[in-house]
Amino acid sequence: MAYKDEQLNEEKVFKDPVHRYIHVKDQVIWDLIAAPEFQRLRRIKQLGTTNLTFHGAEHSRFNHSLGVYEIVRRIITNFEDKPHWNKGERLLCLCAALLHDLGHGPFSHSFEKVFKLDHEYFTQQIIIGDTTIHKILERVSEGFSKKVADVIAKTYEDKLVVSLISSQIDADRMDYLQRDAYFTGVSYGHFDMERILRVMRPIDDQVVIKSSGMHAVEDYIMSRYQMYWQVYFHPVTRSAEVILSKILHRAKFLYEKNYSFKLEPIHFISFFKEKVDLTDYLKLDESIVFYYFQVWQEEDDAILSDLCERFMNRRLFKYVEFNPNRQMNEWMELYQLFQEAEIDPEYYLEVDSSSDLPYDFYRPGEEEERLPIHLLMPGGELKELSRHSDIVESISGKKRTDHKLYFPADFLANLNEESPVKERIMELLYHQGADK
Amino acid sequence: MAYKDEQLNEEKVFKDPVHRYIHVKDQVIWDLIAAPEFQRLRRIKQLGTTNLTFHGAEHSRFNHSLGVYEIVRRIITNFEDKPHWNKGERLLCLCAALLHDLGHGPFSHSFEKVFKLDHEYFTQQIIIGDTTIHKILERVSEGFSKKVADVIAKTYEDKLVVSLISSQIDADRMDYLQRDAYFTGVSYGHFDMERILRVMRPIDDQVVIKSSGMHAVEDYIMSRYQMYWQVYFHPVTRSAEVILSKILHRAKFLYEKNYSFKLEPIHFISFFKEKVDLTDYLKLDESIVFYYFQVWQEEDDAILSDLCERFMNRRLFKYVEFNPNRQMNEWMELYQLFQEAEIDPEYYLEVDSSSDLPYDFYRPGEEEERLPIHLLMPGGELKELSRHSDIVESISGKKRTDHKLYFPADFLANLNEESPVKERIMELLYHQGADK
Amino acid sequence: MAYKDEQLNEEKVFKDPVHRYIHVKDQVIWDLIAAPEFQRLRRIKQLGTTNLTFHGAEHSRFNHSLGVYEIVRRIITNFEDKPHWNKGERLLCLCAALLHDLGHGPFSHSFEKVFKLDHEYFTQQIIIGDTTIHKILERVSEGFSKKVADVIAKTYEDKLVVSLISSQIDADRMDYLQRDAYFTGVSYGHFDMERILRVMRPIDDQVVIKSSGMHAVEDYIMSRYQMYWQVYFHPVTRSAEVILSKILHRAKFLYEKNYSFKLEPIHFISFFKEKVDLTDYLKLDESIVFYYFQVWQEEDDAILSDLCERFMNRRLFKYVEFNPNRQMNEWMELYQLFQEAEIDPEYYLEVDSSSDLPYDFYRPGEEEERLPIHLLMPGGELKELSRHSDIVESISGKKRTDHKLYFPADFLANLNEESPVKERIMELLYHQGADK
Amino acid sequence: MAYKDEQLNEEKVFKDPVHRYIHVKDQVIWDLIAAPEFQRLRRIKQLGTTNLTFHGAEHSRFNHSLGVYEIVRRIITNFEDKPHWNKGERLLCLCAALLHDLGHGPFSHSFEKVFKLDHEYFTQQIIIGDTTIHKILERVSEGFSKKVADVIAKTYEDKLVVSLISSQIDADRMDYLQRDAYFTGVSYGHFDMERILRVMRPIDDQVVIKSSGMHAVEDYIMSRYQMYWQVYFHPVTRSAEVILSKILHRAKFLYEKNYSFKLEPIHFISFFKEKVDLTDYLKLDESIVFYYFQVWQEEDDAILSDLCERFMNRRLFKYVEFNPNRQMNEWMELYQLFQEAEIDPEYYLEVDSSSDLPYDFYRPGEEEERLPIHLLMPGGELKELSRHSDIVESISGKKRTDHKLYFPADFLANLNEESPVKERIMELLYHQGADK
Repeated sequence: MAYKDEQLNEEKVFKDPVHRYIHVKDQVIWDLIAAPEFQRLRRIKQLGTTNLTFHGAEHSRFNHSLGVYEIVRRIITNFEDKPHWNKGERLLCLCAALLHDLGHGPFSHSFEKVFKLDHEYFTQQIIIGDTTIHKILERVSEGFSKKVADVIAKTYEDKLVVSLISSQIDADRMDYLQRDAYFTGVSYGHFDMERILRVMRPIDDQVVIKSSGMHAVEDYIMSRYQMYWQVYFHPVTRSAEVILSKILHRAKFLYEKNYSFKLEPIHFISFFKEKVDLTDYLKLDESIVFYYFQVWQEEDDAILSDLCERFMNRRLFKYVEFNPNRQMNEWMELYQLFQEAEIDPEYYLEVDSSSDLPYDFYRPGEEEERLPIHLLMPGGELKELSRHSDIVESISGKKRTDHKLYFPADFLANLNEESPVKERIMELLYHQGADK
Repeated sequence: MAYKDEQLNEEKVFKDPVHRYIHVKDQVIWDLIAAPEFQRLRRIKQLGTTNLTFHGAEHSRFNHSLGVYEIVRRIITNFEDKPHWNKGERLLCLCAALLHDLGHGPFSHSFEKVFKLDHEYFTQQIIIGDTTIHKILERVSEGFSKKVADVIAKTYEDKLVVSLISSQIDADRMDYLQRDAYFTGVSYGHFDMERILRVMRPIDDQVVIKSSGMHAVEDYIMSRYQMYWQVYFHPVTRSAEVILSKILHRAKFLYEKNYSFKLEPIHFISFFKEKVDLTDYLKLDESIVFYYFQVWQEEDDAILSDLCERFMNRRLFKYVEFNPNRQMNEWMELYQLFQEAEIDPEYYLEVDSSSDLPYDFYRPGEEEERLPIHLLMPGGELKELSRHSDIVESISGKKRTDHKLYFPADFLANLNEESPVKERIMELLYHQGADK
Repeated sequence: MAYKDEQLNEEKVFKDPVHRYIHVKDQVIWDLIAAPEFQRLRRIKQLGTTNLTFHGAEHSRFNHSLGVYEIVRRIITNFEDKPHWNKGERLLCLCAALLHDLGHGPFSHSFEKVFKLDHEYFTQQIIIGDTTIHKILERVSEGFSKKVADVIAKTYEDKLVVSLISSQIDADRMDYLQRDAYFTGVSYGHFDMERILRVMRPIDDQVVIKSSGMHAVEDYIMSRYQMYWQVYFHPVTRSAEVILSKILHRAKFLYEKNYSFKLEPIHFISFFKEKVDLTDYLKLDESIVFYYFQVWQEEDDAILSDLCERFMNRRLFKYVEFNPNRQMNEWMELYQLFQEAEIDPEYYLEVDSSSDLPYDFYRPGEEEERLPIHLLMPGGELKELSRHSDIVESISGKKRTDHKLYFPADFLANLNEESPVKERIMELLYHQGADK
Repeated sequence: MAYKDEQLNEEKVFKDPVHRYIHVKDQVIWDLIAAPEFQRLRRIKQLGTTNLTFHGAEHSRFNHSLGVYEIVRRIITNFEDKPHWNKGERLLCLCAALLHDLGHGPFSHSFEKVFKLDHEYFTQQIIIGDTTIHKILERVSEGFSKKVADVIAKTYEDKLVVSLISSQIDADRMDYLQRDAYFTGVSYGHFDMERILRVMRPIDDQVVIKSSGMHAVEDYIMSRYQMYWQVYFHPVTRSAEVILSKILHRAKFLYEKNYSFKLEPIHFISFFKEKVDLTDYLKLDESIVFYYFQVWQEEDDAILSDLCERFMNRRLFKYVEFNPNRQMNEWMELYQLFQEAEIDPEYYLEVDSSSDLPYDFYRPGEEEERLPIHLLMPGGELKELSRHSDIVESISGKKRTDHKLYFPADFLANLNEESPVKERIMELLYHQGADK
């Protein structure tokens, strides 16, 4: 029997708290899960620093990747007897679902910004490069790995396949909303996925939703909206992200200044040089990062050791509301005051902004073209979701942004009580509303 | 106001998936949670290697410690208007609950066995030694840290206080059963804790259960029984534990043989020497362990690098049932055959045994004296649980043991097909039943 | 001890699937629950005919009334240490919460419309009239029953007390949304009530919400919106309501025409005459209604027996979308065609409309003045919810209405296939879209 | 297309709180659900008087019947690719599952005992008699209704089919345990049904369980055990059952004595005469019973009206433990004392016994032969469950019985305080332990 058709003797299951069971029948999927590059995802948290705010959020990307695979598996099973659906794409869909996050590293967001990396690039590299994953995929058929990579990169020609993994209502989002809600314990991630799966229909090059299921989709959009603002953009989590970025910046800066680290940061050097190859990248999981952060607590550089100590012991920055448009003068004054107070503002004063567009209709030609969700009406025509749903219409296309200013309240508290610098800093930070 | 009575301006809550919210009102508790020695528990998984079997089980001891605190808080709140209860012990109970697992290191079970450590000893040390935790406790009152340590060590004179943390139905067990069930996703951890808390009564030096709540307790005992056999003793998890132990053994052996590690294992040296002080101990979290295991994959020693690669990539040992009483001859023959096949049996052939006593009545003088659970009957007398419950009676005092033999099936598969050694090994391992 | 202060020896609990336990400590509450007028609520379904659409929705008003009591109990417990809160109102709040729906009869909506009744009037009558409930309340203190009645009627002077039971975020709504979601099994009723209760604050004459809890309130408002359209206004349920109304109309009509019922409808006569006294009203529970509907299936009047048979056996009317503004001509033509086809349109052709205003800001002077929800901002000022929440703003003050035309598809199917009447009816009903 | 093969255009679903969705694809099933005899199950509670103890337990037999159908549907879907399974039996299984409780009347237990009825007989009659159900089944194929009846009666030749509906681990039990737990809100009904369904295998004439799923089955057995003692045999529920029986007895007695009822009890007459035909039986749903009980509250017969008032207003009998073996003398004395006190002991003094055998191995020749649950071992042999599971072994074959004595505490309280009769009654009832 061809490798692509090989089935396990008995279906295997993984117990999953979100989907109850993850079902695996294909030998290919089983082999991919066992590959070292996939097992590595166990050592990378799905939500980075969020566990410092919601202590339950300690789940890994391994966890989530299995979930996305399972959702796609269920969608496809429903599609089997539907027109427009090409059964030959089944294994491709499952592989792309399973592997879509393969290139994520630890704390991706901060690492990518500081070291100018792109996890999507590494996902591609792992799939088409010299890896166990690649070998397994090529056993399926020559060029299969490239197809999987294309689906994940959204360049695959069959857009229907692409849309299962990447659209405004895809398996990726449906899994992470539910999973992150489960592990954080918040009540926002509930929507009736089983119903959504039942009303999904493949039509030409997209997945549409039977209009009778519109309310379940509304619930999903609201769930997404709430999760972004209540969990993903939580200011305490962002505070930890700010510190993390500052650590990476400082370490890079020190390296560039030929600072002599007590322990040679071998795992980081290619990152500092911004010349990261696949081998280096795959080695860097969260344990490695934590190892260095712990060791760096004992470095002589006061800034690096302080920031690392803050991160490891959750001694985070405080924050106040900040409006970058109206408050630039205040920011500049604060910058200068921090310098006077000998608290380096490059590392200890930061404006962080979050913004989200909970749902968007299609605006061709714009930076990020987002394909809209279409409802399939009883008569057979398609209708864009926000034209049919009041609720979705109300938040559609509306970007919401939130800015906060982060700083070390403990340092400020320690400033000389008499000093006018302290007084003025306090006035600028707190005159407008309380720190929460 | 005295530090021990200080209250936060507003009650703080942690969102918890198991108990919904963890409530903190005392400044002391707030400060303890923020202490570095407590934050360190974030980097130690509650269930060690269990996530290799149940991928959801990635939650930390930090997570669990908050849970135990919360349960004790709820019990005490119920006790407030009850006779026999000394309200002055409130803060002591809360601190002991929060800190009871403070001395756990990564993968405690294996580390303790290989390096002859004891996490309870370190819990004591952290509380009474030179630590942030200690300073906070001593601010409450002089000698308070010792009291907390005594409660955890079960030597505190008020046995009622001790029993909240350590008995056959204590806050520790009630939390971990529910929490581990939640994160693994299994259905076994359900019991009606709210009801149990409602029927708990402090009587003299123990917590007893009103007999009307007996069935909830039965459910709890069954839940415990199932969790042990379905989750905690799962043979796949034990396989990972076996490999972990072997890694530690090998590294220690190499160190003792003056093997030259590519990277000096500085964090491990005091462990290899079995002279671990508190500072060394506190540094060793899971990230550090994973760091070395990753680095050791590239060591020249074939056994160390193979075992580390197995652990990191979940290439585990297989297992078969094994009866150490009846099958010693077979084991000895296997040992020799492995040697002939050049697979070092010291590291690649292991019998692992698990055993559990789900509930025990009191047997004074025995090795581990377990205090029984008492029911408070309508007339006021106390009755030992197993005398009233058929189900508990049936499993009471009955130790169940399971033995399995672990080995690397992949190595065996690679042996020369013709070789009589391989044939005989296979015969010995598989003649008696299938590998599952 | 005064009756109002009497406590049960031990707190009693009711096991409740929604709130886990309902806690009762006051003798007064215990006695009210045991009163016949309250027990009667066991025989009246919370959601009338909804169980014909969602088979799980068979729960009674007894069920819901306990739930509202429990929520108010929890709110008040939180309020105990808050300023602005008058502890003396505790028992009044609990009684009003428990009794707020006491005057509901079976299928209130239809009965009230057809027989010109008002359940709120009967709630008042039961509380201040000659009933067991009244006697219990007067034992608390003279005039206490009047106070309870006033709270429910919203005329009580302390508006803070009133708002616990009747506002846009009251205990009544919080219970029924969760309860109805639980019993129907839909996923829409989830919101974090525990968090809402934690952020509620009594301020002057209203309950406000700390702004940090805004998102939980958004979730609650969305939950309300979804429950209305997905459950309460479900067209299949409305079809059953239409038939029910028609039965009542027909029976009344027959009675007025001196039709001779096989069995004297003694329980209905005062309803037919629109002279219902309290004694008659209290006797009419759902069993009585079902008894007559079953008996009436065997009446000679073809319309009455057909309608009853439909209701009992769930042979409901079908429906199509209908716009009363644009389609009055069609409706008139259909009316005439039904007459020609000898299907009495008075009973077999009905437009039913549902409309909901999910949240409203305050518009003084309007028909139904709805008090808005206020957020308590960190600085202490109050802010109306829709000015702070994009989502709530989007649905605020927007009434949504849905009209459907109901008819007996089975009767139409039986019309002579050749008849131009049938053809034209079908054309009018179905030309515009499919029956779902 | 043959009727038996007709499929609905689109699969229909019922939202179900327990199984999430009930899926219907077959026209036959759809038609059966719509039949009047099946719709009638909406008016009969699954748990009779249990809602007087657990107020959530108001769900109907309609509810449960759909659930059993759904479970069998899922089992069969899993069986489709298994050997030993005859796909031709699919529709038969589904029909039998759906209809297995069709003959239940209101409060079956009491009605059957007092009027010497048997719901299983009526299930048979509805299926093979002159009913809509019968006509639908005969459209499938001639004699099909008889087959369905035989499966339910356990006389059908293919015992594998029978065992899906009636065995110690059948769809009936799996549904009601979960459903009753859901609606009562107790935590006892949890077991991993999805896992059990996955490990069920058809072997010859029985369904066996793969041994790897043994623990899920243990959980199911424990769940069953707990539900019986915590819910089904709850003494408060039994108290209501006692009163119900007494009402029926009294009404029958009065009828036989030619008592002149104010309202002719037409629906009851054939029951009083013990000559109930199918038409009479089908008319008697719970509403009819409640109708008469309400009307009878106003009868002149003091016993009948008192008992009805108790039942309607939940003024139940109290109870004490009672041992019929050791306490017969006391019972006889009480009987006489009640007579002296003019409280008719025939209606006001009752010993009620409950007993349950949670699991039984096979004992041929005994009164009720219960087929044991077999585990399918890895080697292929079968092993009876209690030989492999310690827990099941411990409760296997052990019948547990509980006796209680019921009486009207309010009547006793009203007896003359001075009277030696009262004193002696109190002594006999309460000397041994408290009323709970």
